[in-house]
Amino acid sequence: MSKIKLGILGGGEDSLIGILHRVAASMFDRYEIVGGVFDIEHARSLSFGEKLQLDSKRIYRDLDHLIKEEAQLPENERMQVISVLTPNFLHFPMAKQLLENGYNVICEKPLTTTYEEAKILQKTQEKSGSIFGVTYTYTGYPMVRQMKTMISNGEIGEIQKVDVQYYQGWINPLIHDKEKRSNTWRLDPEKSGISCCIGDIGTHAFNMAEYVTGMRISSILADLNYLYEDNPMDIDGTVLLRFSEKVKGVIRASQIATGEENNFTVKIYGNKGALKWEQENPNYLYLLKEDQPLQVLKPGHSYNSDFSLEGTKLPPGHPEGIFDSMGNIYLGIANAIEKNTKFEGAFPPLAEGLRGMSFIEKTVASHKKGNVWIKMNDK
Amino acid sequence: MSKIKLGILGGGEDSLIGILHRVAASMFDRYEIVGGVFDIEHARSLSFGEKLQLDSKRIYRDLDHLIKEEAQLPENERMQVISVLTPNFLHFPMAKQLLENGYNVICEKPLTTTYEEAKILQKTQEKSGSIFGVTYTYTGYPMVRQMKTMISNGEIGEIQKVDVQYYQGWINPLIHDKEKRSNTWRLDPEKSGISCCIGDIGTHAFNMAEYVTGMRISSILADLNYLYEDNPMDIDGTVLLRFSEKVKGVIRASQIATGEENNFTVKIYGNKGALKWEQENPNYLYLLKEDQPLQVLKPGHSYNSDFSLEGTKLPPGHPEGIFDSMGNIYLGIANAIEKNTKFEGAFPPLAEGLRGMSFIEKTVASHKKGNVWIKMNDK
Amino acid sequence: MSKIKLGILGGGEDSLIGILHRVAASMFDRYEIVGGVFDIEHARSLSFGEKLQLDSKRIYRDLDHLIKEEAQLPENERMQVISVLTPNFLHFPMAKQLLENGYNVICEKPLTTTYEEAKILQKTQEKSGSIFGVTYTYTGYPMVRQMKTMISNGEIGEIQKVDVQYYQGWINPLIHDKEKRSNTWRLDPEKSGISCCIGDIGTHAFNMAEYVTGMRISSILADLNYLYEDNPMDIDGTVLLRFSEKVKGVIRASQIATGEENNFTVKIYGNKGALKWEQENPNYLYLLKEDQPLQVLKPGHSYNSDFSLEGTKLPPGHPEGIFDSMGNIYLGIANAIEKNTKFEGAFPPLAEGLRGMSFIEKTVASHKKGNVWIKMNDK
Amino acid sequence: MSKIKLGILGGGEDSLIGILHRVAASMFDRYEIVGGVFDIEHARSLSFGEKLQLDSKRIYRDLDHLIKEEAQLPENERMQVISVLTPNFLHFPMAKQLLENGYNVICEKPLTTTYEEAKILQKTQEKSGSIFGVTYTYTGYPMVRQMKTMISNGEIGEIQKVDVQYYQGWINPLIHDKEKRSNTWRLDPEKSGISCCIGDIGTHAFNMAEYVTGMRISSILADLNYLYEDNPMDIDGTVLLRFSEKVKGVIRASQIATGEENNFTVKIYGNKGALKWEQENPNYLYLLKEDQPLQVLKPGHSYNSDFSLEGTKLPPGHPEGIFDSMGNIYLGIANAIEKNTKFEGAFPPLAEGLRGMSFIEKTVASHKKGNVWIKMNDK
Repeated sequence: MSKIKLGILGGGEDSLIGILHRVAASMFDRYEIVGGVFDIEHARSLSFGEKLQLDSKRIYRDLDHLIKEEAQLPENERMQVISVLTPNFLHFPMAKQLLENGYNVICEKPLTTTYEEAKILQKTQEKSGSIFGVTYTYTGYPMVRQMKTMISNGEIGEIQKVDVQYYQGWINPLIHDKEKRSNTWRLDPEKSGISCCIGDIGTHAFNMAEYVTGMRISSILADLNYLYEDNPMDIDGTVLLRFSEKVKGVIRASQIATGEENNFTVKIYGNKGALKWEQENPNYLYLLKEDQPLQVLKPGHSYNSDFSLEGTKLPPGHPEGIFDSMGNIYLGIANAIEKNTKFEGAFPPLAEGLRGMSFIEKTVASHKKGNVWIKMNDK
Repeated sequence: MSKIKLGILGGGEDSLIGILHRVAASMFDRYEIVGGVFDIEHARSLSFGEKLQLDSKRIYRDLDHLIKEEAQLPENERMQVISVLTPNFLHFPMAKQLLENGYNVICEKPLTTTYEEAKILQKTQEKSGSIFGVTYTYTGYPMVRQMKTMISNGEIGEIQKVDVQYYQGWINPLIHDKEKRSNTWRLDPEKSGISCCIGDIGTHAFNMAEYVTGMRISSILADLNYLYEDNPMDIDGTVLLRFSEKVKGVIRASQIATGEENNFTVKIYGNKGALKWEQENPNYLYLLKEDQPLQVLKPGHSYNSDFSLEGTKLPPGHPEGIFDSMGNIYLGIANAIEKNTKFEGAFPPLAEGLRGMSFIEKTVASHKKGNVWIKMNDK
Repeated sequence: MSKIKLGILGGGEDSLIGILHRVAASMFDRYEIVGGVFDIEHARSLSFGEKLQLDSKRIYRDLDHLIKEEAQLPENERMQVISVLTPNFLHFPMAKQLLENGYNVICEKPLTTTYEEAKILQKTQEKSGSIFGVTYTYTGYPMVRQMKTMISNGEIGEIQKVDVQYYQGWINPLIHDKEKRSNTWRLDPEKSGISCCIGDIGTHAFNMAEYVTGMRISSILADLNYLYEDNPMDIDGTVLLRFSEKVKGVIRASQIATGEENNFTVKIYGNKGALKWEQENPNYLYLLKEDQPLQVLKPGHSYNSDFSLEGTKLPPGHPEGIFDSMGNIYLGIANAIEKNTKFEGAFPPLAEGLRGMSFIEKTVASHKKGNVWIKMNDK
Repeated sequence: MSKIKLGILGGGEDSLIGILHRVAASMFDRYEIVGGVFDIEHARSLSFGEKLQLDSKRIYRDLDHLIKEEAQLPENERMQVISVLTPNFLHFPMAKQLLENGYNVICEKPLTTTYEEAKILQKTQEKSGSIFGVTYTYTGYPMVRQMKTMISNGEIGEIQKVDVQYYQGWINPLIHDKEKRSNTWRLDPEKSGISCCIGDIGTHAFNMAEYVTGMRISSILADLNYLYEDNPMDIDGTVLLRFSEKVKGVIRASQIATGEENNFTVKIYGNKGALKWEQENPNYLYLLKEDQPLQVLKPGHSYNSDFSLEGTKLPPGHPEGIFDSMGNIYLGIANAIEKNTKFEGAFPPLAEGLRGMSFIEKTVASHKKGNVWIKMNDK
């Protein structure tokens, strides 16, 4: 099975979302990045592509060129799917053009800037029959998937209350200063659509509420906060949810929850139990039952569903972030190799391995001699 | 700057350590995997290399062939560093041969099976002048690096107590059954050296204690547990540490701490404060000071050291595991593309993006109409 | 300073609220319980009073008798304050009668069954000039008081968002069974007023929101859930709050949050920081500031306000519940004394104290002899 | 059943241990404090007894007087048990005298200053047949009792590892200053016996290890730290434990664990599972099993043992500290009554009860009118 050929639009240089998508694409050895348009300026796009060691011929000037020139390649070399990581207002025209040309698409959220555009996109996809994924990232966590499975298996019975919170504080230092708030693109309706807080994070909360419950919200009542009259965009809001007459819920989203980082929590209450999950500690899923001990489920255990286990690469107790830890050590070694610096601490040098062996041997010796002190002579 | 050419020994197929090293190598776009020996059986090695889409010429029969044939390549194409992910007893001969042939080496721990071997390796490296990294993975976490920096900056004053715990429970189901325990390679001195628990995890604790404090342990007193007389290998132990006359510490390591996953915690107490870190929640670093509120530091904030920030790729509140979450979504899309299945839940399809746009528009409308209920008509 | 003479209405036998009030009254050696009406049946009231070793003359038949006969006592012997712990619908008539007769009153919440009654009570108090306390218990926690002080000192700046949650699950096993729900007094408007969930716990959330912020809610919008058409009382609800045009908030209360015990949490966000507190872990107060480490404040430290410290009786690290732990040991000893049983474990007998001394001496001896093993010969 | 007559030695005025014992004695309405010797100075003892409203005749000059004069009282009025809360070196002579005179005794720990004294005490008790309790306070927590029961029921199988930690940091600011350390009574062997850290807190750890496991430690190996040569008392130590050849353990105790408050944690690992408990969060008991979700047990649930439930006075979710919260409100009211101050915040006044009623009515009205905004007109 050969790797899927992946093209990328946007996400160049220091783009965080670019890093996230590239690493994600590498995780299961299933994708090969073959080219794209990384930047609106072709020179920068080219130099970034070079850093990724891509064939410079496939670093295109723009999307039109990409589509035209990829079509010239032998079919088994062409991009099979393209990730759209550009600013929000470009999602729609690019995704549409890609669909019209038969590409599978991975698109960052929000999908478009208006509902109208999104409907057009949907019709376009229906014609093309392409695969189209929107990266609501948080639905990929193993314990979110476990939550979804357990709910659909009836583990907590019939749902009777849904409570989703998405609190951040990042806009607080900007919103109270008139100049700053008028210069923030997130607060500019032309660039960000009609909503800031709900558009950016409320939409994650909404998607998650429907994703894990498998239910559809039938109506909503919202109260938003703009804080200042000259601010056209909501930066905080509470939305009452009605799934059905009996099943209610609430989404709370804020960007002025000062000091909060990315506090996205999901609580689903059924008539037989409840499930809770918090994005900032994504390896824990809490199962509550009446008059029973609280249960804490973690990834990688055999009690999890196949769907959850498929997304876990390491044994229990290895938080997913361990990839990053190892990644940092590889970075330290790369720096050492290329710059010939050997910064103490950036990676464990051979001497530490040596010392570790000494420790093992002396520990066993201390024990075998009757638990006595032994010197660690070496350094 | 072109990518560093990386070869790999071992780590084929479903090897967890193989996945970990490959993902780590991809994290900062600094390495390109070009070949290696993935399996002792060449056919399996080849088929795994094919999965990684490597040039089959560089999937070598064994290390001898690798060394000989790589040397035939133009210098700028040759492997620059080689990761040794083979069983423990092969670390020494392979690493030695690599050093003797001028390669930079990344080697899994434990470095060797005896201290004697490790000393030979060190001498070999001194001659070759190569870079040699031992992957004590946990030292790469951003908050471990922050801990190291804060201690070296005197944040907690002079260290007066060191407490490191590494508790696992995985060997419990094996150790109490005579047949199982005699068939576990980890409990076989020929394959695993003289120690199981201390050799496998005690050594991490030891390395961490010295890494974060910047101090050297001068002597040790150990009490190990073997549980059964026919078991030649420790599966639990406590090691008293003496850094200096005044500065003492203790390492507790266990593989019979039933129910523990990978509970590695580090506590360093100084005369001006203390720092604590837990591997299973690696994004939190706790700073204790006399009669002051407990402080909880997290990655990505400007209050962290450059050394810590270098290892953080995303903004605060995005646990490092988010890469995995996104990785899982990419996997779902890959499956959809290749198998043409569109499993509901494995990735968010376009329809969810559409629905998200509807939610945003209706939320703003509900608010603007005076906080009234609005129907979500679409599905 | 002599103790205040306290009378009690209700709270007899196994009444939990009775225990809570009696222990609270004993905490600072400021009250002496002298009598009351513990039960509607006089015989039970008398026997309970006897258990408390009260003068049986002051265990009155009913409130009328209490008022008449207390007035006959010398002034310095009379009850000075009376706690009303009776069912909700009796709060109003009893408290009114007490105020009219010049008594200070401590009254359980909810104050009355209707707002109308409460207004009458207020007018009665204005005439009498008595002290009148309503036991919103949770406002007495040291860290709630610390929160109130910090907010009033401007520690988190101007408040911009208030979020209070009070989730319980206790009504879940009753509500889904038609017979059970029609026989629960909490769901009977005649006994419990017009609201169950909001009346019982929403009102705590409301009081807490105003208590810690020092602000007043100016208007509300509510969405309640009754789950079944034949159920006349809300058992879940979300209330949008408006303090002022800019300052909004939300109260979420539920008795169908299955598996929740008494999950009452308060989050206050200001433009300079935020404070969070959770009733189930009442010794922790969380202070969030932009781009600073999270701070966790605990009771008894000098960094707390005098108002908070006044309510802390033990040094830091002794959770308030330690009183209960010691109380249990006293109970074990009481049982041993009276029943002459010496149940192993109900309290530590002398032999354990002896053994503790042996441990101390042998520990020092082991150390002084150079860290050697010493036997614990005794049992 | 009349209350048990309790006398107290020591614990006068602001003594924390005095408060703790008095509140504990009141918790189950089983004791009546009738007198004692609260202070070495009789005048202070008398004034403290007056505060407690005790009969001044039973505030004795010293223990000799107490014993002589109590014996003159009718038998059913005499003290039945006496709590010894005096400085450590007085425990022995007082407890001995009490036992010799037939009293039941409650004695603070450490029982005596030497093992020798403790043995004498034991013999004295054997003769007298009195009840004698040593207040190892922490064994009274409901979840410690649950832990003990579960272990004895075989819930975690055969114990294979015991790990107890007791870390405090309080001596850190004293120990590094020569003058301060030479003036601290805890570091003076004449007043505190041969050990500071082990004697004060190590002994709790030791008792707890044996209490919850029901096993006896057979030998120990200790490493203590004194930090300074002129300091005669240990302020930190690690003690290796051997229960049997196979079953090992470790106690870690410290008073120089800077920033720690009263961090006493117990971890017991068996071959079928493990149990963990932390004194600073005493309402949580953690049950670990291989490849099963972590379970968190809390007090008051029916899944707990009778022994645990006996020590829980309130329903689940009410942390034991709620007594203190209510106690603080009673204190606020006492202050208001006596000083006629009505400090805003020290207790909830009638106006808050009124406002609560308004909130309830308006919330129901908002809901019934179709979820609309309603003003809170009153203040």
